[in-house]
Amino acid sequence: MTVTIIGTMALDDLGLPIGEFPQIIGGSATFASLAASIFTKVDLVSIIGPDFPKTGLELLNNRGVDTSFVHVSKTKTFHWSGYYTEDMNQAHTKETNLNCLLEFDPILSQDENKNKFVFLANVDPFLQKKAIKSIKKPELILLDTMNFWIEHKKPELLETLKMVDVLLVNDQEIKLLTGINNIIKAMQKVMELGPKRVIVKKGEHGSIMFNGKTFFALPSFPLFEITDPTGAGDTFAGSFIGYLSQAQNLDEHTFQKALVVACLTSSFTVEGVGIEKIKAITKADLQNRLQAYRKITGIAEEIF
Amino acid sequence: MTVTIIGTMALDDLGLPIGEFPQIIGGSATFASLAASIFTKVDLVSIIGPDFPKTGLELLNNRGVDTSFVHVSKTKTFHWSGYYTEDMNQAHTKETNLNCLLEFDPILSQDENKNKFVFLANVDPFLQKKAIKSIKKPELILLDTMNFWIEHKKPELLETLKMVDVLLVNDQEIKLLTGINNIIKAMQKVMELGPKRVIVKKGEHGSIMFNGKTFFALPSFPLFEITDPTGAGDTFAGSFIGYLSQAQNLDEHTFQKALVVACLTSSFTVEGVGIEKIKAITKADLQNRLQAYRKITGIAEEIF
Repeated sequence: MTVTIIGTMALDDLGLPIGEFPQIIGGSATFASLAASIFTKVDLVSIIGPDFPKTGLELLNNRGVDTSFVHVSKTKTFHWSGYYTEDMNQAHTKETNLNCLLEFDPILSQDENKNKFVFLANVDPFLQKKAIKSIKKPELILLDTMNFWIEHKKPELLETLKMVDVLLVNDQEIKLLTGINNIIKAMQKVMELGPKRVIVKKGEHGSIMFNGKTFFALPSFPLFEITDPTGAGDTFAGSFIGYLSQAQNLDEHTFQKALVVACLTSSFTVEGVGIEKIKAITKADLQNRLQAYRKITGIAEEIF
Repeated sequence: MTVTIIGTMALDDLGLPIGEFPQIIGGSATFASLAASIFTKVDLVSIIGPDFPKTGLELLNNRGVDTSFVHVSKTKTFHWSGYYTEDMNQAHTKETNLNCLLEFDPILSQDENKNKFVFLANVDPFLQKKAIKSIKKPELILLDTMNFWIEHKKPELLETLKMVDVLLVNDQEIKLLTGINNIIKAMQKVMELGPKRVIVKKGEHGSIMFNGKTFFALPSFPLFEITDPTGAGDTFAGSFIGYLSQAQNLDEHTFQKALVVACLTSSFTVEGVGIEKIKAITKADLQNRLQAYRKITGIAEEIF
């Protein structure tokens, strides 16, 4: 089944310990779409300016991402400028230029409403709510957010969460959202906010999922080098929903396998600058890494 | 096979969010011995003052811990005073009174030299080195340390590490020891320092083990409440070496199972104040928690 992904497409200036990377293709929905495309076709709902490179759209199209729902504005593409220092644990923002993102109106039309699996990547919760309200009979809505919205748009975010099936956050975000320091307890608290399931991404420390009753936890795939953490969370989400959309059913076991897939996919993302690595990852790459991951984690089951 | 555990016994003043706990039994070797005693008999090498409660020694003896190598000094017992705040991630020290620990001379005599598995809990690396030099034909030496020694006694620590089989540290400590922020890379660096194996404890984020070639990673057992983190690392180590000492062989698979055991044992420790919980944990308790842990981690194998 095709997946709908709603979020940003961007041109970023990225500073990394290995060098400066100006005007590279980024954005939450770009990363998520490339990851989901490992498993399924994607309808990408976003907005770009005239400066977004044609090669970027072609790349997405070649991966099975339909960009015909990407609105082309006369205003420049959303731009983020930031850098990572040696510890790679946190992105430091120098500048954010919303540009054409201010015009983003993600109301899904009849045509865009054919898909049952929707990922709302990180944008203003007001826009996420608008998008969700326009979705007809979704099977599963996955939502990502970030500290900025939790701090500055909490009421909107809380309203939006009521309409969400799965919330995806990182460890800092869930603490901020719930006011609870113990992540396990915080995950339980999320169940009172609407989502039926919550996943906490912890970067190098792995991830943990809670469905209101049971937990499932995974360590990260060990990497000697992290080249660029940008997009790790988005590709985690994209591959997660991409895998789910192709599954025979949505039982707990399927969600657990989707979490393994998400963990492995994002481990590739951080090995390249921007979309460099994720743009070419195949199911076979994941399969190979899964063999190594099994030995590292004791997970024995078949996934693909 | 009996395990030898060398380290501190203490009377601590502990401040926790749930209350104040003055003069409670603590110390790295106390915690580690109680944990190892789940699997094996323990020879405890330590030093106490006349103020150490008789009931404490009786408790240890009843668990199969031989305290006849515990020297009783005329000086008061080692005393640590500190507290944890809500986030429970770091102990804040108010005061450390070494007291009788200044007289600690852990040279193993003929009688104490019958055991092949030795855990050197966190003490001055100078003492650890002294102890190791006195050990005859050990099978396995496991060593713990802490930030203080890495910062203030690095030359002694590095010399000691050359004689150690397994190094056990937390994520902050390994970064400080190696000067490398990426834990995976830092673990590789440790292989150049002497140990043939390194384990990084990451508290709520689980643990990871490296033997120079392969990694094995585990998430922590999810807990809604952490009552008191004191002794978690020591009971991790104690149960790890206790399990190893009883194993048929020391192949990689045995080490992996020992890590699961360590992870589960320390998850009990933090549920009680001081030794409250760990002092009564049995193999059956671990077995029960393992059933739940398997579902959470996808680890299928038999361990006990």
